[in-house]
Amino acid sequence: MFDDTNPMIDRVRTILPKIRANADKAESDRMVPKENIDLLKSTGLHRAFQPRAYGGLEMPVPEFENCIALIASACGSTAWAFSLLAEHAHQIALYSKELQDEIWAKDPDTLASSSIAPYGKSVETEGGVRFSGEFGWSSGCDHATWAILGFLRDDATHGKVYSFAIVPRSDYEIKDTWFTQGMRGTGSKTIVVKDAFVPNHRIESVPALMTLTSAGGQLYPDSKTYHTPFIYVFASCFSSVSLGVAERMIALYTERTQGRVRAYTGAKVGQSIPACMRLAESAHQVAAGRAFLEKTWEDMRDHAARRAYPDPLKMAHWRTNQAYAVKMFVAAVDRLFEASGGSAWFEDSEAQRLFRNAHMTAAHAYTDYDVSAQILGRALMGLEPDPSLF
Amino acid sequence: MFDDTNPMIDRVRTILPKIRANADKAESDRMVPKENIDLLKSTGLHRAFQPRAYGGLEMPVPEFENCIALIASACGSTAWAFSLLAEHAHQIALYSKELQDEIWAKDPDTLASSSIAPYGKSVETEGGVRFSGEFGWSSGCDHATWAILGFLRDDATHGKVYSFAIVPRSDYEIKDTWFTQGMRGTGSKTIVVKDAFVPNHRIESVPALMTLTSAGGQLYPDSKTYHTPFIYVFASCFSSVSLGVAERMIALYTERTQGRVRAYTGAKVGQSIPACMRLAESAHQVAAGRAFLEKTWEDMRDHAARRAYPDPLKMAHWRTNQAYAVKMFVAAVDRLFEASGGSAWFEDSEAQRLFRNAHMTAAHAYTDYDVSAQILGRALMGLEPDPSLF
Amino acid sequence: MFDDTNPMIDRVRTILPKIRANADKAESDRMVPKENIDLLKSTGLHRAFQPRAYGGLEMPVPEFENCIALIASACGSTAWAFSLLAEHAHQIALYSKELQDEIWAKDPDTLASSSIAPYGKSVETEGGVRFSGEFGWSSGCDHATWAILGFLRDDATHGKVYSFAIVPRSDYEIKDTWFTQGMRGTGSKTIVVKDAFVPNHRIESVPALMTLTSAGGQLYPDSKTYHTPFIYVFASCFSSVSLGVAERMIALYTERTQGRVRAYTGAKVGQSIPACMRLAESAHQVAAGRAFLEKTWEDMRDHAARRAYPDPLKMAHWRTNQAYAVKMFVAAVDRLFEASGGSAWFEDSEAQRLFRNAHMTAAHAYTDYDVSAQILGRALMGLEPDPSLF
Amino acid sequence: MFDDTNPMIDRVRTILPKIRANADKAESDRMVPKENIDLLKSTGLHRAFQPRAYGGLEMPVPEFENCIALIASACGSTAWAFSLLAEHAHQIALYSKELQDEIWAKDPDTLASSSIAPYGKSVETEGGVRFSGEFGWSSGCDHATWAILGFLRDDATHGKVYSFAIVPRSDYEIKDTWFTQGMRGTGSKTIVVKDAFVPNHRIESVPALMTLTSAGGQLYPDSKTYHTPFIYVFASCFSSVSLGVAERMIALYTERTQGRVRAYTGAKVGQSIPACMRLAESAHQVAAGRAFLEKTWEDMRDHAARRAYPDPLKMAHWRTNQAYAVKMFVAAVDRLFEASGGSAWFEDSEAQRLFRNAHMTAAHAYTDYDVSAQILGRALMGLEPDPSLF
Repeated sequence: MFDDTNPMIDRVRTILPKIRANADKAESDRMVPKENIDLLKSTGLHRAFQPRAYGGLEMPVPEFENCIALIASACGSTAWAFSLLAEHAHQIALYSKELQDEIWAKDPDTLASSSIAPYGKSVETEGGVRFSGEFGWSSGCDHATWAILGFLRDDATHGKVYSFAIVPRSDYEIKDTWFTQGMRGTGSKTIVVKDAFVPNHRIESVPALMTLTSAGGQLYPDSKTYHTPFIYVFASCFSSVSLGVAERMIALYTERTQGRVRAYTGAKVGQSIPACMRLAESAHQVAAGRAFLEKTWEDMRDHAARRAYPDPLKMAHWRTNQAYAVKMFVAAVDRLFEASGGSAWFEDSEAQRLFRNAHMTAAHAYTDYDVSAQILGRALMGLEPDPSLF
Repeated sequence: MFDDTNPMIDRVRTILPKIRANADKAESDRMVPKENIDLLKSTGLHRAFQPRAYGGLEMPVPEFENCIALIASACGSTAWAFSLLAEHAHQIALYSKELQDEIWAKDPDTLASSSIAPYGKSVETEGGVRFSGEFGWSSGCDHATWAILGFLRDDATHGKVYSFAIVPRSDYEIKDTWFTQGMRGTGSKTIVVKDAFVPNHRIESVPALMTLTSAGGQLYPDSKTYHTPFIYVFASCFSSVSLGVAERMIALYTERTQGRVRAYTGAKVGQSIPACMRLAESAHQVAAGRAFLEKTWEDMRDHAARRAYPDPLKMAHWRTNQAYAVKMFVAAVDRLFEASGGSAWFEDSEAQRLFRNAHMTAAHAYTDYDVSAQILGRALMGLEPDPSLF
Repeated sequence: MFDDTNPMIDRVRTILPKIRANADKAESDRMVPKENIDLLKSTGLHRAFQPRAYGGLEMPVPEFENCIALIASACGSTAWAFSLLAEHAHQIALYSKELQDEIWAKDPDTLASSSIAPYGKSVETEGGVRFSGEFGWSSGCDHATWAILGFLRDDATHGKVYSFAIVPRSDYEIKDTWFTQGMRGTGSKTIVVKDAFVPNHRIESVPALMTLTSAGGQLYPDSKTYHTPFIYVFASCFSSVSLGVAERMIALYTERTQGRVRAYTGAKVGQSIPACMRLAESAHQVAAGRAFLEKTWEDMRDHAARRAYPDPLKMAHWRTNQAYAVKMFVAAVDRLFEASGGSAWFEDSEAQRLFRNAHMTAAHAYTDYDVSAQILGRALMGLEPDPSLF
Repeated sequence: MFDDTNPMIDRVRTILPKIRANADKAESDRMVPKENIDLLKSTGLHRAFQPRAYGGLEMPVPEFENCIALIASACGSTAWAFSLLAEHAHQIALYSKELQDEIWAKDPDTLASSSIAPYGKSVETEGGVRFSGEFGWSSGCDHATWAILGFLRDDATHGKVYSFAIVPRSDYEIKDTWFTQGMRGTGSKTIVVKDAFVPNHRIESVPALMTLTSAGGQLYPDSKTYHTPFIYVFASCFSSVSLGVAERMIALYTERTQGRVRAYTGAKVGQSIPACMRLAESAHQVAAGRAFLEKTWEDMRDHAARRAYPDPLKMAHWRTNQAYAVKMFVAAVDRLFEASGGSAWFEDSEAQRLFRNAHMTAAHAYTDYDVSAQILGRALMGLEPDPSLF
């Protein structure tokens, strides 16, 4: 099912058995094992969106997301956290050269985690802001040395403007708050900042980032990567994880069902017509969802390559197609899990982990389909965007 | 929503806060806390199906199931295990008077757990069988001193006949195997029997139990309880638990959503139209499922009261209506949970427990809807029952 | 499935074959055949909600709706139009005695049709209003000699008040506009009123009718019928029709499928597992929907009998439960129709008629589930009613 | 949404308004208007799969199906009948050169209709068979002068072998039997053959056609078209029609809803959140279904271009992906139609035609999802194909 012309795929395949073997450890540690990050760094995939100026790959979106889906088939939590850590380079590439140098000049393998909801409090000061806040759910933060954090910055002209500050590890603490029943292994802990100074070259507003008018918005004029607004690449991370989890569920259900026997009657479930039909419908649904994502990702690649800025309806689709695909993947996983019997619920069954993780991919603000349906529906109906929907 | 003419409901309501307070403990202990069983025994509900000859209540099915739904709104695991412990008295009442005396004469509060899939191995011997086996998933076994265990008994005329042996606590060990992600608190551990002698008066075949031709099948000619075949009362236990969990989810979602604010935008979710519509649809669905169960339970009560034996289509409905209702309840819970955001996935959120437990109520062999749909469908289409479907 | 203690059911059963035989004629005439109305009048069911003072039955809601469901199993269009014609007596019974005498004193078999959306224009005049308008979709109007018509009446205190004028046949024309693909036989044509004088005793406001403070609101103090606000009985008509259509679809699918053979392979569809499972799921769904309606109808009967006025949440349920049930019935019909093959689409196939009619039962303003879900959802969430939702 | 690099698309766009204007006529005539066929012939699209040897286009599957979807947005019936008429050239290209010359040598615009279920009766005779039968549902037969007809031919070695005879117009009558409620305009009437002689060069078995071992299987060694087994191109016709109908429904719903006002309240439906959400979900679903079809069609094109024969799992996907996509399209249409109100049911509303036609695209033996799910499910589960599923 994977695009075999993508060379990175082979490198990821090589390390996959070890990542799969660490899946339980990720759950019990409630964070991605360091070994997984090291393995992934060995492939270079963490530099997918890093500018070539720092040795990065400036990888097209479809190739990156296919790799993430493959990783998610082994460990959803690792794929989730890692995809975000890698994707953030796309965002950093829109900041000032000064910040990019701070982050990558010495160590180009440096990673940043994020918490983008505007939880931060800021006070304007000479050359920047004093910055504080508790920022939840920063996936993979244990493996990052910078954090991208959301806040509403006071602006003389526009009032409060949604902005991101990027702060170094020395300016924040990590509080271990990640006790969940889904995607336990992402280590999405809380970043605590107490009155840190953030200079202006480490701050950009969301509107500037979205319109490529930020400090670094035109730093790489020949790049075929950065012209797709970063937020759609960010959003794509959840759907590729969801895809990988769903594809693994199909394979697992097939294996389990082929060997399953009903306790009460001895009937072979693998020969039962309802079991086959569930498998087929989920296989169709996941294949259709994959085709939908691939087409959307290709569209992003094509726009970036042509440096064509998407129109509002296109952006509404990029923002929301991935949420619809996630909805399809969750439905596909549910159809199989609900026919997997009580044994699938045991802690040593991979099926229950896939079920929990699949649902979690639909629980992010970006994959909330009620929000997505309103965004796209308003765009199609010709109504103004509703600012309460992000 | 509960029938207020049912006096037992008030007694259950009184102890409900304590059962709710123990819900986390039930999960972490992976069994029903002893305090819960003691509280429930204090209401007398554990004797719902015990013959009046031993001081039992011979309670009508609807009254019992309503109590179980109420308990499940506080702790699904407690409701699951307790409903089965209590229901088994219905089955014991069909055995020989000798066995009933053994169980209840000295201590009428005695409970039995079960594991009814035919996992047992037996060798015929003088006056009974030598009996062995490992029997999984015996809910509430820690609080029982007898176990009802399934096996296929050799019969000269009919070959292997599906039968149940009832064995005392001294004849079996309990192996702690219950490590699951759903209904953790039921303590559905494994019963291990090693070459125990089971005398004939402790064994009945399923056909004899179903047709009231077992040793005790006609012991209580005036009872308005035992004429409904026990298996349909057994099956009802899962649906009443599922109902209670779903009704609790509706209440919880309402409370949580009324106060919920979106992290990114500050929008009040409780005033959002999609949130209201999800609530309404799930409320309708659960109310419709409840009405369906109530009508089915009333039908069982009516047949038992009239001592009218159900025809095959009626039995197909009693066997399967509950599975359809469970399907409705799970869908209702999913609709609310999937719109509850990432915070609902934290371990201290009741929402994720309800979600896991709701799905588990659909994972029992008796609530597998693929099986149920085939059973009812064949009956309606005029085909012979398929023996591979139980 | 029908309540056999309801004596009217037997009378309806007697005439059912003739109504069924007229089903095609109803479609091609695009109105209910006069023979059907005569047959139904011969049972007395048209006087279900007429006051006993005029010889009416003051029938409980559940008994009436069960009769309508039965009629709908033979001809959905007849059931739809007739149920509304009969139900309107409930509303008339809340008007002045003077109007009731005008309608029923000479001929107690007189029927009224309606068009209740506020399409009318009125000018206040001495003792009443001058009244005009075109009122669409007045089901069964060919068989009625009065029409209940909606308008917004000018009121010095409250501004525009939603009201109904009841006008005699001599004051309006019928325009034949009913060219539809669903419920063709209802003859829901357009009522045209041109500057008719409507005296005040033939006008009531909706708030007065709803709160039993209209001119006739307390005329029948001992009645066990009129204390349920008429609008919920009105709303119930669509769901009972939908129920009857769905129950007929189940019977028809069973018959057709038992004999069906696949053109390409000769395979017997009646023995196919998917066909059986579809039948079972739809049978469960319709049975659950029926149970939900029956419980709601019993609740209405009970309130009326106790003269207990329902609270707002109860009213939200009465308003919307029927729409949810209709949604269930349509889904059940779809599941069967979509597996009925191309032959089901031929004009001489009853299946396609049931399919079209089932969907039409969900297309009334009162069965629009988007509206219903908002009404109930807001009530449950503790929000104020939204006046744009009726 | 259409691939603008496909030059045929522009030609089809030019004639689209006239085809749309004829949509009602197609319904009332119960056949495709001759003008439509003439218009379509003027584009050359009817020769999409005709061999280049006769001046045909040997068009890639994706380009053809996109044109069909576009036609279906104007008139589903025309698209259905025409796509089959055109597609049959793919099949004829696998027959003997002798037959191809008979059909196309004089008039390369000649079309064939079909009825492929094995309804024919044959008696072996010198050089061919005596052939009789009534063959239902031959879409577009009024515009064809040859008919492709199914039968089980006696074979000394293999018993009955599923085969197709191709017979000229002089050998059959057309019986006007097409009285349906869906796809009325396809004119899918009955072909009646009475004891016609069919020479061997006009007969091929399905296995030979499928494996390219028929008389003409290797006639065009350089073609990039015929290596995809014809049956998958045949199957694709229904899904492209379904796609076009669904895409039209989305556009129509948007237009209608933007202007729609609720009769009872005056509320503007186009600003209602549920209306927007329905639009979005259907738009997502249709876009995902389109992406799935496009990927499947590209895969067919790719295999044909590489002359790579698909493996069994690939063929199971090609056979069934289109049925799953149709299921998605029907669901998308239903979601919009069911929220379109009673006015959508009037005969002059395009919405009800789209609704009827959409459902009909799912009623063909090739789009029956119960069959498709079994085919793919068995293939994925590693079971042997079930010969009762075709």
